[in-house]
Amino acid sequence: MTIAAPKTTLQAFLQLPYIEESPAWEYINGEGVQKPMGGGKHSTLQKGLVAAIDQADTRYEAFPELRCTFGNRSVVPDVVVLANNQLPLDESGDIISAGIEFAPAWVIEILSPAQSQTKVTGNILHCLRHGSRLGWLLDPNERSILVYQPDRLPDLLFGADQLPTLDEIALQLSVETVYGWLRRTS
Amino acid sequence: MTIAAPKTTLQAFLQLPYIEESPAWEYINGEGVQKPMGGGKHSTLQKGLVAAIDQADTRYEAFPELRCTFGNRSVVPDVVVLANNQLPLDESGDIISAGIEFAPAWVIEILSPAQSQTKVTGNILHCLRHGSRLGWLLDPNERSILVYQPDRLPDLLFGADQLPTLDEIALQLSVETVYGWLRRTS
Repeated sequence: MTIAAPKTTLQAFLQLPYIEESPAWEYINGEGVQKPMGGGKHSTLQKGLVAAIDQADTRYEAFPELRCTFGNRSVVPDVVVLANNQLPLDESGDIISAGIEFAPAWVIEILSPAQSQTKVTGNILHCLRHGSRLGWLLDPNERSILVYQPDRLPDLLFGADQLPTLDEIALQLSVETVYGWLRRTS
Repeated sequence: MTIAAPKTTLQAFLQLPYIEESPAWEYINGEGVQKPMGGGKHSTLQKGLVAAIDQADTRYEAFPELRCTFGNRSVVPDVVVLANNQLPLDESGDIISAGIEFAPAWVIEILSPAQSQTKVTGNILHCLRHGSRLGWLLDPNERSILVYQPDRLPDLLFGADQLPTLDEIALQLSVETVYGWLRRTS
């Protein structure tokens, strides 16, 4: 179950000491909400997506659980994909510890058991409306992926359907390839 | 829980003797799936929506649980809204017992506990891609309504947000008005 904190402002939320505990807390519609635990399927899909995207194109990098704060919301998507020239660096050229303050180019969410799909959908729509060009919503129970792109209805993809990625990333993935990563026995 | 029948064709599915039992069965992606039981909130919201839409405009009529078969899918949305001149009539001018074979102008689904939101979303997207002009997806747990319209991202509405209806229907409803129908004590 997710737990809600009292109504607060975004600024006050970001000062709370526990929001980076695992699972992380998000700030949505004026209140803090803790993400649910993901579990084994969630963890495996998250790892597989990060690896596949990192290998596909050296100009982009995938990050699990990176805080994204913009448009009066602070979300921690399961995976965000950023262009190299978007990475927030400190003076020594290292990636900073804090999250980003803009909409990532591509955002991926993986439904957990007992997670509100409506809440996750709302987060993806928030990203798209603030500049994200692509959103994926994985539903491991249905073995489907809902694909969100700006200014159009989402597409619900299954099986051999090829997944749209950012135009400039040459990554060929079908839905069944992604869920095939869950299999461990021959 | 929903129950899946063996893979079959749409024609064979429509001959099955039990598909109009309650809850009704739907035919999605090549297999029959029984809708889950709705429960009290579902029943109350369905009744309220039908009454509100029927009162709003005499040129349109709302129907609960009307089978809609088109595009190799057979779905039974919680509410569909049809123009009077679209109603399927028999020789005596009565409404026929069978469902319709086209996409309804407006389709409404109400999430039930344990229902797959992805499956319901897929049904709404199917309707929009085949000619429906409006889709609502109610999530009673979140007290929100996702509004689908052609060729654009859905909108996630809450609280005092006014709900888009078909342009020609003068119906003023906010999300909180709809969920207010659930309250029975003062």
